[in-house]
Amino acid sequence: MMFWLLGPKLALIREQFLFSFDAAEELKEAIAKKNHKLVYLYNPNLVDEIWKGSRPMPPNKPIRVHELKYAGVDVASKLSFLRSELLDTCSSAIIVSMLDEIAWLLNLRGSDVPHSPVMYAYLIVEVDGAKLFVDNSKVTPEVLNHLENAGVELKPYDTILSEVESLAAKGAELWFDTSSVNAAIVNTYKSACDRHFEIHASDRKGNLHNGSNDQSWGPSGVYRASPISLAKAVKNHAELEGMRNSHLRDAAALAQFWVWLEEEVDKEVKLTEVDVADKLLEFRSKQAGFIDTSFDTISGSGANGAIIHYKPEPESCSVVDPKKLFLLDSGAQYVDGTTDVTRTVHFGKPTAREKECFTRVLQGHIALDQAVFPENTPGFVLDAFARSSLWKIGLDYRHGTGHGVGAALNVHEGPQSISFRYGNMTPLQKGMIVSNEPGYYEDHAFGIRIENLLCVKEVDTPNRYGGIEYLGFEKLTYVPIQTKLVDLSLLSVAEVDWLNNYHAQVWEKVSPLLDGSASEWLWNNTQPLVKQ
Amino acid sequence: MMFWLLGPKLALIREQFLFSFDAAEELKEAIAKKNHKLVYLYNPNLVDEIWKGSRPMPPNKPIRVHELKYAGVDVASKLSFLRSELLDTCSSAIIVSMLDEIAWLLNLRGSDVPHSPVMYAYLIVEVDGAKLFVDNSKVTPEVLNHLENAGVELKPYDTILSEVESLAAKGAELWFDTSSVNAAIVNTYKSACDRHFEIHASDRKGNLHNGSNDQSWGPSGVYRASPISLAKAVKNHAELEGMRNSHLRDAAALAQFWVWLEEEVDKEVKLTEVDVADKLLEFRSKQAGFIDTSFDTISGSGANGAIIHYKPEPESCSVVDPKKLFLLDSGAQYVDGTTDVTRTVHFGKPTAREKECFTRVLQGHIALDQAVFPENTPGFVLDAFARSSLWKIGLDYRHGTGHGVGAALNVHEGPQSISFRYGNMTPLQKGMIVSNEPGYYEDHAFGIRIENLLCVKEVDTPNRYGGIEYLGFEKLTYVPIQTKLVDLSLLSVAEVDWLNNYHAQVWEKVSPLLDGSASEWLWNNTQPLVKQ
Repeated sequence: MMFWLLGPKLALIREQFLFSFDAAEELKEAIAKKNHKLVYLYNPNLVDEIWKGSRPMPPNKPIRVHELKYAGVDVASKLSFLRSELLDTCSSAIIVSMLDEIAWLLNLRGSDVPHSPVMYAYLIVEVDGAKLFVDNSKVTPEVLNHLENAGVELKPYDTILSEVESLAAKGAELWFDTSSVNAAIVNTYKSACDRHFEIHASDRKGNLHNGSNDQSWGPSGVYRASPISLAKAVKNHAELEGMRNSHLRDAAALAQFWVWLEEEVDKEVKLTEVDVADKLLEFRSKQAGFIDTSFDTISGSGANGAIIHYKPEPESCSVVDPKKLFLLDSGAQYVDGTTDVTRTVHFGKPTAREKECFTRVLQGHIALDQAVFPENTPGFVLDAFARSSLWKIGLDYRHGTGHGVGAALNVHEGPQSISFRYGNMTPLQKGMIVSNEPGYYEDHAFGIRIENLLCVKEVDTPNRYGGIEYLGFEKLTYVPIQTKLVDLSLLSVAEVDWLNNYHAQVWEKVSPLLDGSASEWLWNNTQPLVKQ
Repeated sequence: MMFWLLGPKLALIREQFLFSFDAAEELKEAIAKKNHKLVYLYNPNLVDEIWKGSRPMPPNKPIRVHELKYAGVDVASKLSFLRSELLDTCSSAIIVSMLDEIAWLLNLRGSDVPHSPVMYAYLIVEVDGAKLFVDNSKVTPEVLNHLENAGVELKPYDTILSEVESLAAKGAELWFDTSSVNAAIVNTYKSACDRHFEIHASDRKGNLHNGSNDQSWGPSGVYRASPISLAKAVKNHAELEGMRNSHLRDAAALAQFWVWLEEEVDKEVKLTEVDVADKLLEFRSKQAGFIDTSFDTISGSGANGAIIHYKPEPESCSVVDPKKLFLLDSGAQYVDGTTDVTRTVHFGKPTAREKECFTRVLQGHIALDQAVFPENTPGFVLDAFARSSLWKIGLDYRHGTGHGVGAALNVHEGPQSISFRYGNMTPLQKGMIVSNEPGYYEDHAFGIRIENLLCVKEVDTPNRYGGIEYLGFEKLTYVPIQTKLVDLSLLSVAEVDWLNNYHAQVWEKVSPLLDGSASEWLWNNTQPLVKQ
């Protein structure tokens, strides 16, 4: 955020393209209380004055078509669903500015944002047409053809405001999700509507004399949440298949990686946290359909593992210490899916404290994984399952337990979540993907997190009390959990069975993709535990 | 609720003493949408016209002093706490109309409401005084002395409105919890304030010309939740001791009752659900300090057990069927505490279905009982623990899991609850009492509920992550849970241990109060289960 002090009052001068309308309004209200005023500056844009010639060019890598076999539903069907929403809300068109929503709607993927396969664009979907505002240089002939087939017209990226103005002038009722659409677009529309209103008002003198602010003959906008977010969150069959398949290839890469790492550590090779992350990327990039990491790898040895969003840097990161816990949270973008997995391991002999904490995190992971719950249950209802075992000894963790994940899209997406923040009332629905990632972080000592991705599925319960569906989870992630860190005395028989069953599935699903030492590693790391 | 149709529009004529201000306002708004108006009628009060001479006299049983050894805190201290709240909110006085709040504040108990040891009264607590509005005939010399010592003045019950008026005329800022204070009182105050405002306004002509509604020199009322509700919910040491002791005597009565009932059933005596409830009352009434039942006993055989708030009536109730489940939810008011306990039993051989459902309800009961959670956790966070085991096979129950309970007061009290309704954000606090009563109800077949009362306590966890307290529960109820209904194959070792440990405590705590067949019954019904 940027601001200048102008005179006795604080005037804020900002790129209103960079702030959602809601965020700008909130700021406006907050500073108004101190008698400050938010001023939008267009000419000169002071930020551009500072950049001058040194501003980097916007990314312009080509857009690609996300194949129907991975997308599952064609663009025409998605637009048709969206148009029925337009009719239901009496909107003429919707302005879509969330990049993952545009990518999902149009079955396109881009490379403009690190780790997220999206392209800079705006999309306007009208009842009888659609316009994609994007830099033409990114549009390949294949993409052009794909868009033409779906009836989507191309427009230059920087013509979005003039298009919104001209729609307003034509009296179009535009639908905005003001939590995401930027302030520039909404303000442009509102101003244009006001002008439209004034012109009509002067045309129809006397009509205003009754004092009522009758806008029934002019547009005023529809302001409500995007209907795309939920539709995108509920994955279809093809998306789930892509998620399953990409997770198995990802698991194979991880098995190869862990063998390599354990061998290097055995040979007492000094490896930094960044070396390790780089090598993991190398293994992943050999997997079919690999595109990118899905976020910056969190590779934390010892105390660094306790920093929840730790990002090791080459010049400052630690060497992986074989005598400490090592936390590795990483993921990848594949052509067919997105992965996100965390494992915590010890290369030597863990302390009783480390084992107890690890085991309680694991118990939370298992409890959430095994939860069955009635339809219409918001994620926060399940959050306590993941913490219960830690709570029993006075431990907890300061992050949510689960976030939504896109299918070959952003690794964080809404609208669902599983969190101790009780505000998100979105029910978990069949086909949604969530992470299951309880943890425990002991400052200056170690961090533990065990993360799988799960897909919400219907459970075939023997009863259906209330005539409703009961839901549960299907695992997507198949990577061994280090049994050396498990304190068996804490686990119930059912929990031991869960772990053994999980490892049997890991072997069954991932071993066909491996050979040699990686296959041997997988075998050794999926052997059942026996509770005495 | 009553209303008359007067002319083309619906006019509502009601006893505004019977509706909280909030409820009346809600009604007013609802009917205003249909262009109807809420009209308060004072003279004639049409309800009184209908009653004429046949209206029963108001109850006038004597009030008694709730001894300090049970109350734990004297009236002066409670009033002093309340007065500090008055100062904090810039109120001159608070109008207390919740009967249990008055009883708690004044360490008094009454007999005006069946099952609830309260008396009809209003209380006004000012910074420098307090007035109790109550029918003088209920006030014994002891109570009068008790009130005088606490500086509480007596006023006739029906002078509450004139007192409110005169306080308003004096410019007093009165604090109302409009969710409970009746519409008559709040409306009287508001009208009096308006009159007060008008008189001052005409005294100070010209002051209104600036157009602002400046009431800074007149009272307007403080409208916020009563501070007494939470103070009352958090029990002190003496209240908890009374709850513990009364629960043991109650458990002794229940043991005597169950021996009797099992013997009668063995002898094939036909007993109705009401006969059984009456006999239970007989056993309870022999216990020291017994005063009343704490609610209408729910005594349900077979399908009647599936009716959650079933009240058997002598002329229509069922005979207790030895071949079906029998649900008994009952409680008592003792001089030192309030009980509420539900047990479900079978006199013959339960079906596998009944055992599975019972066992899953028991697992939910155990999970909640054993929960440990950080301070500031609202009750709804724990609700899923009680349902999880039922959810796994597609079962659920349509009531909350826990309600607050008064100490020798109302069997239902707020502000805390444990419920699948996620709106109650009141954190569970040390000293609060809640019921733990998961259930399962199979329509037209049977009902199962297992209910203990619990007290929230601090748990001495080995860690205190976040530097906060971790809380858990202490059991108050010590009544055997019928092990015949337990499907051992479903229980974990920890759950079997819980049940055995509970039964060992039941024997240890309750057997000293029993002899003969009741003691023998208790011994037989507290024997440990062994999981193979």
